[in-house]
Amino acid sequence: MLKNGTVLHQVKHAYATMPETVNKVLNQHSVGKKAFIQGWIKSVRKLKNHIFFNINDGSTREAIQVVAEMEAAQNIRTGASVSVLGTLSIAPNNQKELKAENVQLIGDCVITEGYPFAPRKVYPPEYVRQYLHFRPRTNRFSSLLRVRSNLLTEVTKYFNEVGFIHINTPIITSNDCEGGGEVFTAVPANKELIKQMGKPGEPTEKTYFNSEVYLTVSGQLHLEAVAHGLSKVYTMGPVFRAENSRSRLHLSEFYMLEAELAFINKISEILNVIENLLKTVTRRVLETSQDDINYLTNNKDFSWLDKPFVILTYDEAINILSSKLKMPDTDARSETEFSKEDELAVVSYCGNLPTFVINWPKQVKAFYMRECEDNPKKVSALDLLVPGVGEIVGGGLRENTYEKLQKNIPSDDKNFEWYLELRKFGGVPTGGFGLGFERYLQFLLDIENIKDAIPFPRWPHNCQL
Amino acid sequence: MLKNGTVLHQVKHAYATMPETVNKVLNQHSVGKKAFIQGWIKSVRKLKNHIFFNINDGSTREAIQVVAEMEAAQNIRTGASVSVLGTLSIAPNNQKELKAENVQLIGDCVITEGYPFAPRKVYPPEYVRQYLHFRPRTNRFSSLLRVRSNLLTEVTKYFNEVGFIHINTPIITSNDCEGGGEVFTAVPANKELIKQMGKPGEPTEKTYFNSEVYLTVSGQLHLEAVAHGLSKVYTMGPVFRAENSRSRLHLSEFYMLEAELAFINKISEILNVIENLLKTVTRRVLETSQDDINYLTNNKDFSWLDKPFVILTYDEAINILSSKLKMPDTDARSETEFSKEDELAVVSYCGNLPTFVINWPKQVKAFYMRECEDNPKKVSALDLLVPGVGEIVGGGLRENTYEKLQKNIPSDDKNFEWYLELRKFGGVPTGGFGLGFERYLQFLLDIENIKDAIPFPRWPHNCQL
Repeated sequence: MLKNGTVLHQVKHAYATMPETVNKVLNQHSVGKKAFIQGWIKSVRKLKNHIFFNINDGSTREAIQVVAEMEAAQNIRTGASVSVLGTLSIAPNNQKELKAENVQLIGDCVITEGYPFAPRKVYPPEYVRQYLHFRPRTNRFSSLLRVRSNLLTEVTKYFNEVGFIHINTPIITSNDCEGGGEVFTAVPANKELIKQMGKPGEPTEKTYFNSEVYLTVSGQLHLEAVAHGLSKVYTMGPVFRAENSRSRLHLSEFYMLEAELAFINKISEILNVIENLLKTVTRRVLETSQDDINYLTNNKDFSWLDKPFVILTYDEAINILSSKLKMPDTDARSETEFSKEDELAVVSYCGNLPTFVINWPKQVKAFYMRECEDNPKKVSALDLLVPGVGEIVGGGLRENTYEKLQKNIPSDDKNFEWYLELRKFGGVPTGGFGLGFERYLQFLLDIENIKDAIPFPRWPHNCQL
Repeated sequence: MLKNGTVLHQVKHAYATMPETVNKVLNQHSVGKKAFIQGWIKSVRKLKNHIFFNINDGSTREAIQVVAEMEAAQNIRTGASVSVLGTLSIAPNNQKELKAENVQLIGDCVITEGYPFAPRKVYPPEYVRQYLHFRPRTNRFSSLLRVRSNLLTEVTKYFNEVGFIHINTPIITSNDCEGGGEVFTAVPANKELIKQMGKPGEPTEKTYFNSEVYLTVSGQLHLEAVAHGLSKVYTMGPVFRAENSRSRLHLSEFYMLEAELAFINKISEILNVIENLLKTVTRRVLETSQDDINYLTNNKDFSWLDKPFVILTYDEAINILSSKLKMPDTDARSETEFSKEDELAVVSYCGNLPTFVINWPKQVKAFYMRECEDNPKKVSALDLLVPGVGEIVGGGLRENTYEKLQKNIPSDDKNFEWYLELRKFGGVPTGGFGLGFERYLQFLLDIENIKDAIPFPRWPHNCQL
């Protein structure tokens, strides 16, 4: 292993130039200009008198080719970090390349000492996922991270433009939103602290906050409180599920983009907000992340952007499943949630366009959903289904009549008094939705497993780092 | 209490016009134009033949004045939600007002039934804080929420412009970043699930993730992993402290804006990033939130934006405290953290400019801080102190020499193996910082108590909603 800081090749005195990103040098510099870059070696090719290596620094998907004299830079290897001072020129293949005048090793990378990625090898995602701390150095995952970041930026800009106010809803909460029971509880690790703070006879789970507390499963109820004053609000934050599910679509910790709107009377208004959001943000990220997205998806077809989303009622969807597609057991599934197979079959039947399913049986959806005006057995709830993933959005109108909501609240739960009071004082009809951010990325980028759509996935029996 | 939906005053058929925000009607409509708005009554004034009331919908700080015939709209009251169809006109006082043709009650608000805010009364923040679900309806807190949202938007845009990539660092983690022990642990609430998933003899805290897990205290270590590949990264997310502190500057759950940069060799480079970030984002939010900020701060002086931040070494700061300010017990405090009084005294001495304190005694700062080149007893760490709040940023260079870092890691902790490996394979010098988002808001808006800078504050014995 070479000592870090070793000068591998020096023609002139380096560091005369300020460091610049590979992105800037490749896309803004003119040929003949000096450039000083820093990054990681992605590949090395040795010829008779010269050595060629590619450097990437994460600023773009592209790597810049460096050419140096063989003798001086022969200890260069894949994975190492280096700085290079050189002159931008044109290689015989018409690509830009940096003719190195000074190459300095910053940190070596000796694969035999335990680095898990060999040069030139492409590993399956399950293998790469075992090394979360090195995963951002791989080509595919660094592209994913840049797209994910651009997507968040575009979401933030878009919601700001259309007048939504961002609200950080709480992570620790005394409300178990939907009463599903699949929550994590949080308690201080320091038992001494609990002893100091507690009252005699009090359960230790209640000591710190005077109440048992959970990690949020949704910011919706809190967003509703804020919507009763700011009208249009959204949040983008982590939510949690303590389930024993290891499917390719579930995580114990994931991100939800949630929005709530006041003065909403018709479900079509929410469908419009969702469709406009997804189309606008997707179009913009296709521009800002064009290169990364083409690389990740192999120039995927995005023609759904130019077509209206399909809207089906639940009954229509059931009818498609039973009469048209002859799916087995459809009768048994009537009045229940769809299975993943059902969801994908409906989307496929609808030409693989994003498909809204609305007006769900009451017992399938959460207690706060508003009854349909023309059918008290149905609620104005919606799912949005997309190819490859199934449901990526859930939402609907919220019950805003105090008495009806009170009747529907899970019994013996006093924690919902505040939620009821929203309807009692200056109440307004509200509605909203939650979009699974990782599933949206799976849909956009054809990511098979949700664990490859988030930097640090958590799932049962796995909490690396 | 009036039945919701009651038509209070109808001249013409309503809903001919699409609803618009108060912001748009006040700032973009021309006089004589029809407008249909929806919002909450902020105040009511009854004259002989007419009733005047102000409506706000959260889209702007301003409320629009509505004038209606007395007889028909006499049941209007503060806190209720209404829709109004009217014509925009100019009142005798030259303000825009809406001459109502139709006023419809959406949700009444009867204070005697338990609504905590009486008309025209201004309550102290501690009182308002008891009603977190109604707090977004108050003038001051709705202004705060709009500023907070704009601040987040500007941070997102700025980091995107200067090439930082947003990374969601994990909330649940098996690392207890700084070894402070003031962490929350997370376990599934469902005891049956733990039984199903567990192995015989295994502690229940370890069952779900095969490891005891904590709520993150900082995303720094994870950001460092990603910076070793993407070079410039940031996160903006919740962090947690299980402390028994009820000061006006501490929360159990708060937001940190954290950034890490690769190829950083000098602390001055980080100071520049922080100063540019704070100045640019503050300038922009002063534009986008001008009205709300003037209202909240009474036209506060922001002249610090035009002056360079002060930079002191720790030794210089100690010297100011002891020799110049004659603070008591300075000797005892030498080689320790500053107290809040020290911090505020140093800032005051420096003309109330934001003041960096750098080069801290090693034992005061976390294990990963890099030794100063010219003094192994000091580390290249930084605090940024501001008036009224004290420390709002902490950061520094990270130790990037494998052997030194290994020596400094808290003993018997195997969870840092991955963190060490970042230095072993393609290691680079890194540095970064964390900005307390609520403290930044406190500084900008002169918010005395941090609980009034976040929508849903959590602190010991308090987890409302």
